[in-house]
Order: sequence, then structure tokens, then C-alpha cells
Amino acid sequence: MKNLSIVFALSTVFASAVLWAEPVTCLSPDGRAVVTFDLTAVGEPTYSFAFRGETVIAPSKLGFDIKALGADAFDGRKAADLRRDFVLTDVKRATADETWKPVWGEEKEIRDHHNELLVALVQKTTGRRMNVRFRVFDEGLGFRYEFPSEEDKGVARLVPGQQIVPQGQTQPLTHFTIVEERTRFNLPCDPLAWWIPADYETQEYRYTNSKVTEIPSLFKGAPDANLSTTLTPVPCVQTALMLKYPSGLLVNLHEAACVDYATMHLKVDGHDFESYLTPDATGAKGWLQTPCRSPWRTVICGAKGADILSSRLTLNLNEPCALADTSWIHPVKYVGVWWTMITGAKNWAYKPDPTMHAANTTNVIRHLDFAAEHGFDEVLVEGWNIGFEDWFGKEKDAVFDFVTPYPDFDLEGLNAYAKKKGVKLMMYHETSASTRNYERCLDAAYGLMKRLGYDSVKAGYVGNILPHGDHHYSQWSNNHYLYCIKEAAKRQIMVNQHEAVRPTGLCRTWPNLIGNESARGTEYESFGGNNPDHTTILPFTRLIGGPMDYTPGIFEADLSKVCSWKKQFISTTLCGQLALYVTMYSPLQMAADLPENYEKRLDAFQFIKDVPCDWDETRYLEAEIGDYLTIVRKAKGKDEWYMGSKCDENGHKAKITCDFLTSGKTYTATIYADAPEARYGGPTADRYVITKREVTRETVLDLVAQPGGGWAVSFK
Amino acid sequence: MKNLSIVFALSTVFASAVLWAEPVTCLSPDGRAVVTFDLTAVGEPTYSFAFRGETVIAPSKLGFDIKALGADAFDGRKAADLRRDFVLTDVKRATADETWKPVWGEEKEIRDHHNELLVALVQKTTGRRMNVRFRVFDEGLGFRYEFPSEEDKGVARLVPGQQIVPQGQTQPLTHFTIVEERTRFNLPCDPLAWWIPADYETQEYRYTNSKVTEIPSLFKGAPDANLSTTLTPVPCVQTALMLKYPSGLLVNLHEAACVDYATMHLKVDGHDFESYLTPDATGAKGWLQTPCRSPWRTVICGAKGADILSSRLTLNLNEPCALADTSWIHPVKYVGVWWTMITGAKNWAYKPDPTMHAANTTNVIRHLDFAAEHGFDEVLVEGWNIGFEDWFGKEKDAVFDFVTPYPDFDLEGLNAYAKKKGVKLMMYHETSASTRNYERCLDAAYGLMKRLGYDSVKAGYVGNILPHGDHHYSQWSNNHYLYCIKEAAKRQIMVNQHEAVRPTGLCRTWPNLIGNESARGTEYESFGGNNPDHTTILPFTRLIGGPMDYTPGIFEADLSKVCSWKKQFISTTLCGQLALYVTMYSPLQMAADLPENYEKRLDAFQFIKDVPCDWDETRYLEAEIGDYLTIVRKAKGKDEWYMGSKCDENGHKAKITCDFLTSGKTYTATIYADAPEARYGGPTADRYVITKREVTRETVLDLVAQPGGGWAVSFK
Repeated sequence: MKNLSIVFALSTVFASAVLWAEPVTCLSPDGRAVVTFDLTAVGEPTYSFAFRGETVIAPSKLGFDIKALGADAFDGRKAADLRRDFVLTDVKRATADETWKPVWGEEKEIRDHHNELLVALVQKTTGRRMNVRFRVFDEGLGFRYEFPSEEDKGVARLVPGQQIVPQGQTQPLTHFTIVEERTRFNLPCDPLAWWIPADYETQEYRYTNSKVTEIPSLFKGAPDANLSTTLTPVPCVQTALMLKYPSGLLVNLHEAACVDYATMHLKVDGHDFESYLTPDATGAKGWLQTPCRSPWRTVICGAKGADILSSRLTLNLNEPCALADTSWIHPVKYVGVWWTMITGAKNWAYKPDPTMHAANTTNVIRHLDFAAEHGFDEVLVEGWNIGFEDWFGKEKDAVFDFVTPYPDFDLEGLNAYAKKKGVKLMMYHETSASTRNYERCLDAAYGLMKRLGYDSVKAGYVGNILPHGDHHYSQWSNNHYLYCIKEAAKRQIMVNQHEAVRPTGLCRTWPNLIGNESARGTEYESFGGNNPDHTTILPFTRLIGGPMDYTPGIFEADLSKVCSWKKQFISTTLCGQLALYVTMYSPLQMAADLPENYEKRLDAFQFIKDVPCDWDETRYLEAEIGDYLTIVRKAKGKDEWYMGSKCDENGHKAKITCDFLTSGKTYTATIYADAPEARYGGPTADRYVITKREVTRETVLDLVAQPGGGWAVSFK
Repeated sequence: MKNLSIVFALSTVFASAVLWAEPVTCLSPDGRAVVTFDLTAVGEPTYSFAFRGETVIAPSKLGFDIKALGADAFDGRKAADLRRDFVLTDVKRATADETWKPVWGEEKEIRDHHNELLVALVQKTTGRRMNVRFRVFDEGLGFRYEFPSEEDKGVARLVPGQQIVPQGQTQPLTHFTIVEERTRFNLPCDPLAWWIPADYETQEYRYTNSKVTEIPSLFKGAPDANLSTTLTPVPCVQTALMLKYPSGLLVNLHEAACVDYATMHLKVDGHDFESYLTPDATGAKGWLQTPCRSPWRTVICGAKGADILSSRLTLNLNEPCALADTSWIHPVKYVGVWWTMITGAKNWAYKPDPTMHAANTTNVIRHLDFAAEHGFDEVLVEGWNIGFEDWFGKEKDAVFDFVTPYPDFDLEGLNAYAKKKGVKLMMYHETSASTRNYERCLDAAYGLMKRLGYDSVKAGYVGNILPHGDHHYSQWSNNHYLYCIKEAAKRQIMVNQHEAVRPTGLCRTWPNLIGNESARGTEYESFGGNNPDHTTILPFTRLIGGPMDYTPGIFEADLSKVCSWKKQFISTTLCGQLALYVTMYSPLQMAADLPENYEKRLDAFQFIKDVPCDWDETRYLEAEIGDYLTIVRKAKGKDEWYMGSKCDENGHKAKITCDFLTSGKTYTATIYADAPEARYGGPTADRYVITKREVTRETVLDLVAQPGGGWAVSFK
């Protein structure tokens, strides 16, 4: 189902006296972004990147520290580097211009237009080969390391007539471990950064906005309480990292297609960065065998926030969809019993007090009725299966079997009832981060789902990873998450992973990965609080890798109304919550509040009922990271538009010209706006005003968001 | 199918002024072995053990260093000890006398007759409970730690009227990690020990015979080359450990029923020992949750070697058979292509040279024909599936899929051919020690076996364990091995695990575990050589835990006849090899040599064809560890006896009275004896003399084993 128009322009040039003339450059299709590859005097590979005449990445070294296995397994692995003594032996170029259709997404078609440069390197002292593949897009850069197999002659190893490595001194690179990836990101300045501290287990942090050089002094104070946390031993930050240069240039650093590789953090070195991978229990940062390759390291640039948000560079650097049949994959709008437990009103566990158990048959029927009445697809029920009474923080090997319900949860009956009502239950698998136990149970767990008609699962990884000593973001764990996604795909099950690794665009290849948490979500409105600007940052950071199951839609801002002892308010207004359905793109959207809280405000709830979670087109009307953003999207297959705007604690006013609407047509705009007195974090947070008016593409709307608020508009 | 006659004599005595009068003793049924439990002045639990008036274990402390989880998971686990401040709060006694029938074994019935003492302890400073259960047999002792759950009131926590722990200071013991088990084995002397160095990965070592106090100076020199080896950081030895006291008393230290627990080593401290468990990747030596218990720590005593070999204490301390139906479990005598690869004559891998590949269809047909002609049950074929061309020593995550044959191995056709011939192929799964990959593939791997008719699998764990950083003998890995055994049992598959943890009698509970390697086997006759006394030691050490797949039967002692560049001889004579089928008890016995080497010596081969591997009765006629042993066994359900005798490099002569034979009956004895010139390790190793004579229970046989040799006799 793809429109392919790929043009490959290969050129291989041989030089006789010198191996290759350096530096080598590659321009983007529009010629305004350029990557330059060079070798230093001692053969260190470097790259630099410029965007519209401005240096984004100053010359920065590339390479690895490794331990390589020699010819004899008994000798073990010897420390070595892939950082110097390289010669350039070949250069290959290609151009691609392809338009592909995502199974779900922010738009119906995505264009992948880039120029490619492959530099083939040989280390003079060992004969080891390391290639670097650059893809230059109009808005940015992706590059990755590629290690050919010994047998692979696809990239010339030696230039004819040149003997690079003295006879008998070649040390083949076959099996090696990564001691550290040493990819530098040298910056020409000291930018502002919106960052969270690097951690091997979690991204559930509040963002700090500071200069890069200020990060080390702020690093240790940054973490929030979390059950499983392992800060990097030196100050590092997580990606996707959003930077703003003194010139105003916006630069985003992340990675794409992290497969069979550890998650990358960025070590702070002055105002520069260097890659810092997540280790396994032995400290090794990767176990590789040629042929192999790293994930793409990505740089997205833009003069304004909308340029960053509209980039599809991360998806474009991922492999095409691996599934022949995707007809079973669909966007999901859902409700659930989740918020009663997150607020503390009810319990996940049946014991010790069954009357406090949220996942009981009566309560679930209530939610199924509500979902059916209001057009939701699914009802998520956590805490339905035995084990929750004793697991949290205990690093137990085998807690859950994923098939045995608590006595008050009528598994068969509820699924039959859901079917009758035309909705589905959404499965929940709390893996307790015990990856072995989950894999052992996977076939039975997925099997139960198929038998009963579940088609999606939320899988949680709360707590320290088992096997003990491993980390949430190691190569081993990353392999596990993808294993589960693939096993689910075989059974036509959609997956939403929480506390797993942050996404890197793998949903293009595996579109049954319909959601990830991997950031500080709505749950922290109950736990430790979110900053009012939180959701004005996430689209520039966490969402660069893929959609987030942020679970918005909290209408009752006063949590004591849900759980009497919880004396706190959430940090957005009600209309701010509505806006998130548009601004936080996800094919999976929850209406997270309690049915009764929606039933009290059915007029506002109408927006959540109306808003789709799959789109033909998206326009980023305004986007100032940390301040506000306004996005409008066209519903999939319909001439309906939905606008959302979210702002920080300072409020926001805008004049929005409706020129995205079809010419000559009149639409009914329903505007959900903060009441003038609405403020986040207090008793007026839920005040809103709904107005309707007829609009055309010429209409200019004056819209106001109050502090911590936002607006939402439907155009039908 | 068991004859049960259990008598429980429970007595609970309350004392008012003191909690309990100490010390507490428990006698064996015959009154000649006694364990004494006591508390030191500071409440340290101790035990001592005496056998027939001689001190075996001097007073020795019991306990643990732990880290315990408090009430709040966020606080983590706090260091604590379970070593002092204990009070004795209850004593329970019981007696058992039960006779049970093993599914297979050295005899058809086993009597379990012991007295039991349970001491209930409470730590005064914390209220934590730790019980020690002792079982005293006529020939030895087993004891284990038991940690009751907080809810368990089965053992009285407090004596009425006594307040042990001040109000509010109780720290419940629920979830904890073991920093170290601190079980002492204080000896009254400096015994001779037959020991191998403690290693977290392997037991494939040559034995050293030295005084205990000499072990530390010999420890580092002891190891042999092995792909995966992690010596304990301080001098420790492995169990089962065989000791000889200056008095002549033989003492064996081991463990029974190691389930969900790390393997124990013994740290050398002067002439004493202390438990030293195998850690996981984090250094933790166990992750436990109450209620839980340790394996049994065992002490077997005897005045002579036969007393040790005839003890069934290890099996008796394991749980009864967990399988309702065991009809599908049967002894297996097999041949295979193994020795051609072990000697280096042929390869495991199809690549790079298919002509060197042992597991090719033609060769396997040759073995199937040979097996059918000579009455073997199965043919083992390793190296049949893709992956062997690139795995050894490389710690790859996913090597084998266990279902994809090499192109020259006709998987379906060979199984059909085997069926026609009335034999079976034996499956081989080289897990490459990648436990996750194996578990992921297990259902498909076992599924293929069931579809094709395989009923047994040899599973290897060569190389460093994955997940990286874990060890072969950790709690995590031990859990894996048992998981595979249980999954196999569900599918009626018998399992033979190589390079896995050494056995601790679990074959009683899971009799589909028909074999283990876990020691230096016949393969080392080709690798680095075995000592000529090796198999006179193994029955006292490795075999205490369960049968070993030693793979005897090498007839061609000159390895250069099998592999031209292998200029070495094996370290036994041919008759010594025959003897092993009797002296090394296993329900799984291989005839390991090449068919052509048997075909040249069909008269001697007749003993291997005749000898069963399941028995009604066994008598240990002579047994001097490190020197010689002679065992005679009665075939299961037949009036046939088979005798084997194996000696060290000094040869051995014996007069054997055949009084084990049925009175009044005459038997034909076929005597397979070393020729006078037969010597191990040289060109005369394969010289033998076969004689037949009529014998009765009055007959006295004069039998001679040459250096490194032995004899074998069948009585029909």
C-alpha cells in the first residue's frame, strides 16, 4: 500500500595516490542542510552538520571503545578502540524520495526524502571495518554505524593497489562488546536545554530548563521519587533532548530504530555531549556480532517549534512495516478503572480489603455501560488478576500468571457482557519487571486474550528489572520489549508498554505498538505533581520517538473529591485536559477520569467523545516549547478538524485563522475554552465556557487559555 | 505405589521460667548417630553431630547474613543478620519410617527411616523467626533452614507468658536477599579430602587428594582449562565432598533438594568449612520470601566406603515423585555420533566443511542400524541443527532455534527410519548457555520432538551463562534447569542436562531427569585426560547427588586410530571401561565408542549389550575411594547379576564370594578381565580375556584388575 518512488544514484570513485580526498560532504535535497565527514590527522572519524548556514554540530568525533573476541574463544575479549587510525576506503551516495502510508498517524502520507552518504572506513592497525551511513533530510540528519561481516564485500575493503594493513596483522572484527559508544555532539554554543536526568530505568521526571553547561550542577537534584531508578554515574541527560541555540535555532537530539542495542544517553561535557549507553549487569553496553549496526543518531533542526513537531525524520529512519496484514490494527479510545487506583481511592489488589478492590465485576460493568453509551472502544481494567497483593518493590521472580482472576472479577462473564455491549475489555499485564516470568507466561497470557476476544494489552514494567542487575534500557531488556511486540503481532494483539524503553519510531515497523508511557504521565498529577508546562515540552521530547499513552481527560481537578485524603489539585484546567487529545498525538487515547465526573459535565465530555485519534492531516499553528502550542488536525477520512492548544502557567492568547478549512464550506465550530477565572492547581480549574459558531476558512478566532489551561475546538 | 508406614511422634513441651532447656538432641533410629542443637551465650544457633561415638561435626554456628525489605519498598533492603540473639521457642519431634519405590534406581525399594527435630527460633532483637529442621538417619544427618511466613502460626512464635521482643520493635521477615549463608562445618580434625575447586560455572575438574588445611595452597593450581569458569574468590571446594578422618571415618558433605536456591560451595577455614553460595550478577546469593526454606545440608558417615555408597540419604531428603504417571519414563541405553566429534575426527558444524560433519544422514543411518542390531534404545545425534558453525565461546544471545536441521540431516526421514528399525533418535539441544533463548524456543523445540517421536533430550549449557553476568549455579540458573525439567515432564520428555548444576537428588521428585553431566566425563579422555583414579572417586562425590551421564565404553584406547592427529591414549583399560556400566550407576548409559570399534571386539561388546541400567538390588562389595571399588547388581525383574570393579593406577586383586546369588542355583558367569599385559594409557589398554564358568553362591572368584583397569562379570 505504498507509493514508492525511489531513485538511487550510486557513485563509486577510485583514487590511486590517496585513498580518498577528504572531507566528504552530503547535502540535503533542498541543499540547505549539509553533513561533512572528515578524518583527523591521526585517522579519527569526525562529522559536522550545518543547517541553513548555521553550524549545528561542530566537528565531532565518531567511534567506539570495544572488547573484541579473537580467533580463540578461550582467550576472551581484548580491549580495543574503533576511534583512530582509520582510512577512508570508499564513499557511496544515494537519494531516496518515497511516500509511504502509516497504518495510523498524524497524517495519511509521509514523505521520506533524503540524500545518503556512506563512508567506508578501515582501521590501518587492525584492518577492521566500520562504516558510517548518513542520511541528510531538509530538516535534519540521521547517521548510524555499520559493521560489515568479514565476508561482506559489498563495500570495498581496500582500494585496488593499496595495502592498508601489513600482511598478517589483520584482526577480524566479528564478535565484540561495546565498552562505550563515543559519538560526540560538539555544539558551537551553550544552548538552552529542556532536559531530564539520564537514568537506566525511568524517564518519569520533571523537565529542567537550563543551559547545557548548567546541567552538571543541577543533575543530582533533578530526580523525583520512583521505585526503580539508576541515575547515570556521571551527569547525562536523556533523549529526545530539545535544545535552543542563542540564535533561536531549535535542535533535537534523539535516536531512531533502537533495535538489539542499548538505549543512548548524552553525557554532558561543557556545552558538548557524548553518547553514553545503558549497560547490562556486567557493565557491558552491548554484545554485537558483525554484520550489525547501531540505531540512527538523529539531529532535527528548525527555526521554529512547528518545524520540529512536523518532522517525520524519526519514523523515516525506521524500517517499513514488517506486517503483511495490518487490518486488525486500529486506534483505540478507552476508559478504565485506573484513576480510582492512581488517586488512592481504590486498590489494585483484592486483599486485604475486597471492598476497596477497583477491578470488581460491578464496577467494570459500570464502565462497560459507560463506554458503550458514549462510544468508547475499550475498557482497561488493571488489578484484575492475582498477585497485586504482594509484589510492589519486592523484585520477586514470579508474581503474576496473567490468567488467574481475583474472585470478584468475572473474567468470562465480563467479556461476554462487553461483547454484547459492542465494546472490548483491554487487557492489563503487570509484568512486575520480571521479564523471564512474563516471557514464560506469554503464550498462555496472549492465548487467554485471543480466546476471550481481547485485542490489546497494556503491559507494565514497574520496579527493578529481573534478571537482577539488568536495567530497563539495556540491550537485553530492549530485546525483550520488541520480542513481546513481535509475539503479540503474530497473534494480532496491539501493545501499549508502560515503564518500558522510550520509543524510537519502531511503531512504523511494528504498528501494533500503539502506545508507550516512558515519561511522566497523568498519574503524577496524583503522585508528585506535574509542572504546568509539562505537556508543552513533551511533544518536543518524548513524542519525537512515538506516541505516548499520557491518559488525559481529568475533569475533577480536586483530587479530594475522588480520594478524600488526597488534598491536591491537578496542574491543568479542564480545557487544558481537552486540548491534550489533540496536542499529545496518540492512536491510543484514554478518558482517564471517573464516569461520574464526566456525567456531571457531559457538555465538555462531548469533545472527548468527538475527537478522533487517527488523522489525515496535521498543522502545527504555534509551538513555543515550554510556553504553548496549538495544533489542528483533520479527522481520518472525514472533513472534520480538531484543534487543541495547551499553555504553561502564564496563559496564552492567540488569533487563529481557520485557513486550514476547506474553501467555500461553512463549519460549526464548538469552542471549549477556559472560563476567565479558570486556573490550574485550584478550585477554579474545572471552569469552562462552551460556545458554538459558524466558521469558514476566512474566520479568525480569538482564543484565550488561562494559566495552566488551554482550549479545544471541533470543526464539523 | 508406595508402601507407607509413617509414625509421627510429636511432642511439644512448655517451660515457664526459661524458654527451653538447651541443648536439645535428636538420635537416629538406631540411637548411634546424634545431632545436638544449642545456643551460645549470645544466642547464636549451633549444631554438632556425632556418629557411633565419634564427633563428626564439632559445635558449629548456623545462620545468615541478609538484607531484608522493610515496610516501605522505597526504603530498599537493609543489612541484617540471622546469626545471633536467638531464643529457642519451640521444639518438635517426629519419626518417619517409609519405604518407597523409585521409578528407576539402584534398587527397587528405598527405606527412609529417620528421626526429626525441629527447633523454632526467634531473634530477640527483631522478632524474626528461623527454624532449623534436622533429620537424623542411622548413617547421617540432613538439616535445613525454614523461614515461616508472618501468618504461619503452625510453629509457636512465643511461649505463653513470654514477651521476647519489646513492643513495636518487631521487624517482620518477608522478602530478603541472602548476603551469605553462614552454616559452619567445624571438624574435629584435619581430614583427607578428595576435592575439586569451587567454581560458579563448572565441575569439570580433576580431583585433588589432600588434607583440608592444604587446600588453600593448592586451590589456584587446581583448575583445568574450561570455556566457562569462575573460581570462587576465596578458596572453596565443591560438594559432594568426600572426607576421611584420621580415625578412618568417612564423611560426605553435600546438599539435597536444591530448589529455588543457589548452589552451595564450602569455604575452607583451617580444617573447617563454611557455606559459600553462588551469587547472581549483582552479587546477591538468593532472593527469598517467607515462607521458604534452604536445601538440606547433608552429612553422610561410614566406617567404610560401601556405607557411603549405599546411603540413600540424598534421595530420602527430596520430595516424593511429583508425577502421577511415570509409565513413560524408562532407562535408556544409547549410542551416538558424539565420540567422533569429541576426538576431533569429525565436526559438530556443517560448515565450513560438510564432509567433516558427523550428523549427516548416512552416518546416522549407520548408527541406527547398529543400534537396532545390538539392542540399543536410542541414537544421540548432536550437531544436527544450524548454529554450531558460530557460537562456541561467543556468548551470543540467540544461536539455535532447535528445530532447523542442517541440509545433510534428514530430520523427518531419519526419524521415520528409526521408527521402522524399532529405535529412537535422542534429541540434542545445545542451549549455548543462553537460557532466555532456550526458554523462548522451548515449546517449539519440545513440540518438534513430540511430533517426530523423540522421548528424550540431552541439553547442553556450554559457555558463559546468559543473561550476561549470571552463573551456571545461581538461584536464577537453577530455577531455569528445573523449569525445563518440569516443562519436559508435561510433555512426557526425559531430560539429560550437561554443564548444568550438579544434582542434589531431584530425580526422586522429577524422575524424567534421567541424567546429568556436571563433572569431568569421558570427553576429557580426549580433551585434557582424566586421572586413572577418577572413576574410583566419582561414586563418592558427584554420584551422591544423582546419576551421571559419564558416557563410558571407549574400546579403542588409541585415539589416533579415531582422529589421526590425536596422539594419546585413554586412561583406562577396556575392561575398566566395561566396569563403569556397573560402578557408575545411571539409568542412562551410552556406548560411546564408534560402531566399528565395537564390531572389532564383539565378544567384549556383549557385556555392554547385556548389562541393564535399572536394578532390583545393589551390593557394594569393596569401595576404597581413590583406589578401587567393586559393585554387583541384580537386574530389574530378572535373576541376573552384573559385577563391575574399577581400580586406579595401581591395579587391584580381589577374592569375590558370590554369596549374592540365589541359593541352590547355578549361573553362567562371563568374566571380562584385563589381560595380564593390559595397562591404561598405552597400546595394551585394550587387551582383555573373556572366560566363562559355572558358579554358585559358594563360588569364590579370584579377579585381577591391571593398572587403570577393572573387570566386569555377568551372572545369568
